[in-house]
Amino acid sequence: MADDKGLTPRADDFSAWYNEVVQRAELADHSPVRGSMVIRPWGYGIWERMQRALDDRFKETGHENAYFPLLIPMSFIEREKEHVEGFKPELAVVTHAGGKELEEPLVVRPTSETIIYSMYAKWVQSYRDLPLKLNQWANVMRWELRTRLFLRTSEFLWQEGHPAHATEGEAEEETRLMLDVYRTFMEEWIAMPVVTGLKSESEKFAGALRTYTCEAMMQDGKALQAGTSHNLGQNFSRQFGLTFQSEAGAEEFAWNTSWGVSTRLVGGMVMTHGDDTGIVVPPRLAPVQVVVVPIYRKEAERTAVVEKAHELAGRLRERDVRVRVDDRDHLNPGAKFWEWERKGVPFRIEIGPRDLAKEQAVLVKRVQGEGEERKAFLPENQIVAELAEHLEAFQRQLLERARARREARSHRGGETLDELREILEGPGGFVYTGWSGDPAVEERIKEETKATLRCIPDPAFRSPQAPTRCIGGGEARMEVVWARAY
Amino acid sequence: MADDKGLTPRADDFSAWYNEVVQRAELADHSPVRGSMVIRPWGYGIWERMQRALDDRFKETGHENAYFPLLIPMSFIEREKEHVEGFKPELAVVTHAGGKELEEPLVVRPTSETIIYSMYAKWVQSYRDLPLKLNQWANVMRWELRTRLFLRTSEFLWQEGHPAHATEGEAEEETRLMLDVYRTFMEEWIAMPVVTGLKSESEKFAGALRTYTCEAMMQDGKALQAGTSHNLGQNFSRQFGLTFQSEAGAEEFAWNTSWGVSTRLVGGMVMTHGDDTGIVVPPRLAPVQVVVVPIYRKEAERTAVVEKAHELAGRLRERDVRVRVDDRDHLNPGAKFWEWERKGVPFRIEIGPRDLAKEQAVLVKRVQGEGEERKAFLPENQIVAELAEHLEAFQRQLLERARARREARSHRGGETLDELREILEGPGGFVYTGWSGDPAVEERIKEETKATLRCIPDPAFRSPQAPTRCIGGGEARMEVVWARAY
Repeated sequence: MADDKGLTPRADDFSAWYNEVVQRAELADHSPVRGSMVIRPWGYGIWERMQRALDDRFKETGHENAYFPLLIPMSFIEREKEHVEGFKPELAVVTHAGGKELEEPLVVRPTSETIIYSMYAKWVQSYRDLPLKLNQWANVMRWELRTRLFLRTSEFLWQEGHPAHATEGEAEEETRLMLDVYRTFMEEWIAMPVVTGLKSESEKFAGALRTYTCEAMMQDGKALQAGTSHNLGQNFSRQFGLTFQSEAGAEEFAWNTSWGVSTRLVGGMVMTHGDDTGIVVPPRLAPVQVVVVPIYRKEAERTAVVEKAHELAGRLRERDVRVRVDDRDHLNPGAKFWEWERKGVPFRIEIGPRDLAKEQAVLVKRVQGEGEERKAFLPENQIVAELAEHLEAFQRQLLERARARREARSHRGGETLDELREILEGPGGFVYTGWSGDPAVEERIKEETKATLRCIPDPAFRSPQAPTRCIGGGEARMEVVWARAY
Repeated sequence: MADDKGLTPRADDFSAWYNEVVQRAELADHSPVRGSMVIRPWGYGIWERMQRALDDRFKETGHENAYFPLLIPMSFIEREKEHVEGFKPELAVVTHAGGKELEEPLVVRPTSETIIYSMYAKWVQSYRDLPLKLNQWANVMRWELRTRLFLRTSEFLWQEGHPAHATEGEAEEETRLMLDVYRTFMEEWIAMPVVTGLKSESEKFAGALRTYTCEAMMQDGKALQAGTSHNLGQNFSRQFGLTFQSEAGAEEFAWNTSWGVSTRLVGGMVMTHGDDTGIVVPPRLAPVQVVVVPIYRKEAERTAVVEKAHELAGRLRERDVRVRVDDRDHLNPGAKFWEWERKGVPFRIEIGPRDLAKEQAVLVKRVQGEGEERKAFLPENQIVAELAEHLEAFQRQLLERARARREARSHRGGETLDELREILEGPGGFVYTGWSGDPAVEERIKEETKATLRCIPDPAFRSPQAPTRCIGGGEARMEVVWARAY
């Protein structure tokens, strides 16, 4: 598609395309503070819908929200050995407050395990107080050297779930349940298919026993870690004295899990569905699902057309469609079309003077499937009756398109490092191979190809034929997925 | 009422009562970080309902949400002279990040005017870009020496609206509109009546032209500033170069407003409605509106009673009542009753074996009006059919009770400092007097009585007879409200 608005095409430079499109769609902007972004209303509206959908699922699965302090004593972060190694280089530190130097520096939370489990230690006495299944929606701070809007910013918004359980089995079950909540949310709301699986030791969360992950494939073939769910075992409960009296009367350490997704998901949505015109927002996430553009030349035409546009919008709203009438006078219809396409609104309705008498309008879908017409002249009543269905169909279509793209770039059956390198230098994507479990192989591949071990995929995502050879030579003990990643 | 659970009665020590009741109701807890609180699920659930109700009204009045950085360059805060004087002593400062000392210290936002208007300066070119009506839900930090859960904490949650307008008139209109949104929300949702009016020069927001306020009266007669709406004039737009081209083609500075309410409102709810048993949550804010307690002695009774409790709960849920069945086995009914009363759940339903055959249950309201029975035996069907009405009636009853309490402690017609002192040392409350407008009078009253000028009340709240004498002597130019305050 010709790009007459100066947007870099994805094929030329995907990274430049991303940076441009995020700003042009007014999703976010750079701030005067290094590495911190401003989330603009269009981006925040999408995030709000993600929040609402996730929060509903958290509550359905028995979780409650709470809020814990932003600032954490440095000594808390230092208590869990792997945790501090993982996070210390990225900390932002408050040393002065209220005009004085603090006795102990406070860190702006990079994640909240330490402060949350220290409170649980105070609240939990008996097995009857468990499970304690709390989540918080919050901002966190990880000082990053190289930042990109949504994908990697020093400050980001997220949710962090931090349950405590009485048994190891329950904790593992919770970890898997929340991974599944994430996977279905990503598929059903973001229309972004993901491969789920287990992280290797070197890629797991700092302080976890096991980390499970949702890995999505972006249009450039790179992986995006879209959400993680950790089984923390008793690592934190031991450091923070989170014990309880079991039913049998013994003093035991609780079993913790933690799981989170962030505003990074907005970046994932952009890189999954966007095109050379702009971003594409799946209908369930779109703050505006349909924009109605009245078309007129003379002032005499204006009144009737604008009135009809609002009437139609009102009828759609009654059917729970989120609709906006763009009746701004100082822009011509073409400029409006382009603005809303760039922002990814799923449908546009155009109404002109000649449509009034015919009781029809033009319906335009943001993205066409194979063989689909871009524009359709339809009776008004039909548009009102069918638009909700069109939105759901578009939602499904986006997921199917993304899945087809991913499958086309999922390479299975390769056995050698050369084959892996060839794929990564060529089409890119996810490469499924055998692995012995040896971390040295993982390290060597990372150095030589810049690909990382994304996950040991769950059964549903494994190849029909289990690989027998490890990519580093010798026998395979499991199948793994390699990709370059954001 | 006798208090057999060791809760300090309000009449003995209102302040101790507050501290105890907030923790016993599990609204919040102290954290290991000085001045920062943990908001527990019951408190956060109430805050979530406040957020939802306010956010709906913000959107109805044409506002959108966005998100701006937590950290603000120190130089930004220093740019507006009054602003820096007001906030500098309370700042928490990040001096190190990513393992290095920062070139310029960053402050944890105490409020976001500076960073937000600096971004607007980048986005706004023409009058067509105005009004720009953004709000953010965020955490803020003001380092406080003396803190109290919800009422005054170093970190708190709030929303801050920051519109920019093309004209002074529009800005003033917005300031008043949002004050009214706050007032009606406080009345209709928190059942907390407020007096609205203008702050004096000495009490206005640091950097504002004019500050309007909602002042609520707590049960001890002290005032709580529950929300403020500021007309900032062009003070910030001048400092941050927030200009636009007017319709006539001239370069002009924009007119800003800002308005906010915070988690302090939860404290206001507690001190407006709580009693010597615990807190009382108005039905519209209650995460659980009705708790159903099954009553049984033998295991044989248990199954049928618990089943009935869940059946009844299901029928209530169909009518959008938020209901919880407390079927915990290890607590006796009395312990459950007391826990839910302490937490302020509006209604309780008790069902025992003998009720099953009669198809009845006991309905207990958390607070009785004059002459009302505490318990009512009612047919199940009647409970299901009428509970939503009972909830709305209870919501109104709480507002009326709070209003009556306030009126009983609103003193009008006093003219001398001695009378003011006598009231404050005695019954306490709001004292309406005349005022010349002289700040020296205000200062003197503050020193001598610890009362502050809460506001110059709006017409609806003024005395029928306008006072003619200033409390400091001489002629009155206006009526004002004095009170000791939180």
